[in-house]
Amino acid sequence: MIYGHDPRTGQTVGAALPETDSAGVDVAVSAAATAGAAWRAASAEERARGLEAVSDALTAHVDELWQLADQETALGEVRLRGEVARAAGQFRLFAQVIRDGAYLEAIIDHADGSLTPPRPDVRRMKHALRGVVAVFSASNFPFAFSVAGGDTASALAAGCPVVVKAHPGHPNTSERVAKIVREALPDPDLLGLVQGMQAGVDLVKHPEVVAVGFTGSVAGGKAIQKLIDEREVPIPFYGELGSVNPVVVLPSAPAKDVATGFAGSVTLGVGQFCTNPGLMFVPDDDELRQALVEAVEGTSGGSMLAERIRDGYLGGIGRLGELRLLAEGKPGEGNWAVTPKVFTTDLDTFAEKLPHIAEECFGPASIVVTYREISDLPAVLERLDGSLTATVHSTDPSEAGDVAEVLGKKAGRLIWNGWPTGVAVCWAMHHGGPWPSSTSTFTSVGATAIDRWLAPTAYQDWPEALLPDELKDANPLSVPRRVDGRLQV
Amino acid sequence: MIYGHDPRTGQTVGAALPETDSAGVDVAVSAAATAGAAWRAASAEERARGLEAVSDALTAHVDELWQLADQETALGEVRLRGEVARAAGQFRLFAQVIRDGAYLEAIIDHADGSLTPPRPDVRRMKHALRGVVAVFSASNFPFAFSVAGGDTASALAAGCPVVVKAHPGHPNTSERVAKIVREALPDPDLLGLVQGMQAGVDLVKHPEVVAVGFTGSVAGGKAIQKLIDEREVPIPFYGELGSVNPVVVLPSAPAKDVATGFAGSVTLGVGQFCTNPGLMFVPDDDELRQALVEAVEGTSGGSMLAERIRDGYLGGIGRLGELRLLAEGKPGEGNWAVTPKVFTTDLDTFAEKLPHIAEECFGPASIVVTYREISDLPAVLERLDGSLTATVHSTDPSEAGDVAEVLGKKAGRLIWNGWPTGVAVCWAMHHGGPWPSSTSTFTSVGATAIDRWLAPTAYQDWPEALLPDELKDANPLSVPRRVDGRLQV
Repeated sequence: MIYGHDPRTGQTVGAALPETDSAGVDVAVSAAATAGAAWRAASAEERARGLEAVSDALTAHVDELWQLADQETALGEVRLRGEVARAAGQFRLFAQVIRDGAYLEAIIDHADGSLTPPRPDVRRMKHALRGVVAVFSASNFPFAFSVAGGDTASALAAGCPVVVKAHPGHPNTSERVAKIVREALPDPDLLGLVQGMQAGVDLVKHPEVVAVGFTGSVAGGKAIQKLIDEREVPIPFYGELGSVNPVVVLPSAPAKDVATGFAGSVTLGVGQFCTNPGLMFVPDDDELRQALVEAVEGTSGGSMLAERIRDGYLGGIGRLGELRLLAEGKPGEGNWAVTPKVFTTDLDTFAEKLPHIAEECFGPASIVVTYREISDLPAVLERLDGSLTATVHSTDPSEAGDVAEVLGKKAGRLIWNGWPTGVAVCWAMHHGGPWPSSTSTFTSVGATAIDRWLAPTAYQDWPEALLPDELKDANPLSVPRRVDGRLQV
Repeated sequence: MIYGHDPRTGQTVGAALPETDSAGVDVAVSAAATAGAAWRAASAEERARGLEAVSDALTAHVDELWQLADQETALGEVRLRGEVARAAGQFRLFAQVIRDGAYLEAIIDHADGSLTPPRPDVRRMKHALRGVVAVFSASNFPFAFSVAGGDTASALAAGCPVVVKAHPGHPNTSERVAKIVREALPDPDLLGLVQGMQAGVDLVKHPEVVAVGFTGSVAGGKAIQKLIDEREVPIPFYGELGSVNPVVVLPSAPAKDVATGFAGSVTLGVGQFCTNPGLMFVPDDDELRQALVEAVEGTSGGSMLAERIRDGYLGGIGRLGELRLLAEGKPGEGNWAVTPKVFTTDLDTFAEKLPHIAEECFGPASIVVTYREISDLPAVLERLDGSLTATVHSTDPSEAGDVAEVLGKKAGRLIWNGWPTGVAVCWAMHHGGPWPSSTSTFTSVGATAIDRWLAPTAYQDWPEALLPDELKDANPLSVPRRVDGRLQV
């Protein structure tokens, strides 16, 4: 049986929930596959309304949802209300995306007999993958990266039914969210929920599953890839794994602002963000060092989401103990409480300890590396693993060129004078990056996250009566298309 | 040492070529990586001119090239001249694609302080993968899917340097084409060529290789995936593997046209096409059967590309021997000559022998399966593996709905009253399909083949001076973009 736990007390929350056995996983996937046929065939407008109904339902239940999630995560009212709003907003964004229709990448090349060889009429657009999308929830976002998170919203938008493997950190919240989403959808079977580790294994191996979305650790991601390799038919794996999110502070950056922003970003949500700034390069400067010490000492820890995550953090800061402790925050309260800790070293020592020293430590910890000359940085940055983000602090773009160029190779999102925590949900967002931060070149946040659940079909000399409406000459749905080489909006 | 062989005689062609050892692979990849930095940074216009120079160089050398390739492949003047033109045309298409700029998927979301939380300025576009693309040549297309084939053209267009592993079926042609392409490019090191099986292994495992393009067998594709799994950093694998390309002839289709077209498509290029129609469902009709026998008996075989490929074909038709031989063509001439063979059975027997009976048999062979009622077909078609193409012959779209729907799940390209051999190079083409016909949802032919070699970057509050031109507010390069949710062409 599975229990939720209150991180503040370690006590169980709610009733015992059964683990989903293999037969149960099969029931959920088969039901989703059956429901998926009509959903895939539905018009974009119908699917958009379904997504909006989910969005409305999440918003309507926010009072209940934040309280339930708070019992299982201790993330607090403000954060959790915000996260429900974020999840609801993601469903609305994807409703816009599918009404817009550009995501289908419709292309028409009319026949051309003047070419050698003569060209037939060829038309192409993307369709939802034909089968069920498996989604693995994240520990640290009970709403926005879980049952009703971005993977689920984008897959449903594409036209795919979804079966979610709940995260053991918030099983009751997962059940409640699933119920709300199922009731809002035109067919409740479009969303399935399974609980338990073995259910996750069965899910990945189910023949009707056609893609996997995952947010979690590098080790977890590798385990899922291994399961996929064992399948008879391999399927795409969209994993968002570990990320250290380097920040480079250049000499022109104002010390106070950097120190305050850094301390806030490192400790936000008890440091439990994949975009947590785990590594910051700063000029070797006493004023900045003093500002950092004061800012970090002004922070407080808190209870982490689960015992296993707390233990991972303690192990991580143990490893970082080979560096000097620069400052620590106040101890947090609660059963799995931890203390924010910032370590420091110089650039040469850091470089000697690569790569192990730059491994992600999930939680409110970071390393401040001091450098003498900007020109010393690129060679060391070059040796970092891939991250979701990289940040530059500077008031003078002319000093940043070389550093920005190296960081561009290392991260999927480049940030100027900001902090990596907080990922805007919008058309232009990219939340992904070089290995190990993600397993593909796709994003898991923002409008283009829908691209993961699509595959193209080309139609050659295909009769008008059998063509999808989006590819008929008259363009009855007014989707953006490229016709005979020219974009038409 | 590696030798080319003349399929007509089995004799060696040209001088012995050394296998590339590990050090040689490293030299080629490192040189490509170094040359790649400037190529990636070059403007789209500069790269487009480079691609056009390659196109011109291929065209200028067509007389020499077809003769050299004919010695190693016996594919004949008409086909090989056409294939050089096709390869040259692919470079021109990709020059258009990168001048157009839509492939970058540029998106700008301006900052919006009215939102909760406030949204920063976020801009996104795609960039070339940062490193070297490895390309494995195909046996059956010495130009269009080899050293100067679609993988190479699309990767160079994206901004990636390329190292090609030559196919042992045409090593001299590969060397000559590589020399011509290298001389046409602004930096010859943008294209490397390696020879030999072990060189292919070293190439896939090289740390500076960031993606692999492959055209070949399912077994070959699985072997490369295994090498990728052994890498420290996994990389994307774009393989085009086996495909049986089902054709469904409905009762309204004219028997004579079907028979002639089928016999031509099955035997074109001695059946050595990944889009060869290896399986055709026809009404149980004496007139059609007779027309098929006559058409197939009118064909001739020829020499296959290599001894190993000939042996594979003989093994394949051995397996098909459990069915009844419907007709065979005239024996071909040449050292590795084979005879076209078409087998037949009824739908029930075929269904009993699934899945093994529908495995691809590379060469001029096919299975004709007779059915009684259209309504008997969907359940059997449903059990087929994925293919690059599926074809319907009919003069009445209203009889085709159910069959078309099932075929839509099974193939990446749907063809009406045509034949799958011949893949138009255009904006709308999709050459890919469900496993095992390809390993991803991407295409290896047509404008969107460039998408394989790109990854997005998001820029958050990034200073104008450091933004790529494509993302500056003034849009100095006039690329199509989505700005604040609206497409602008």
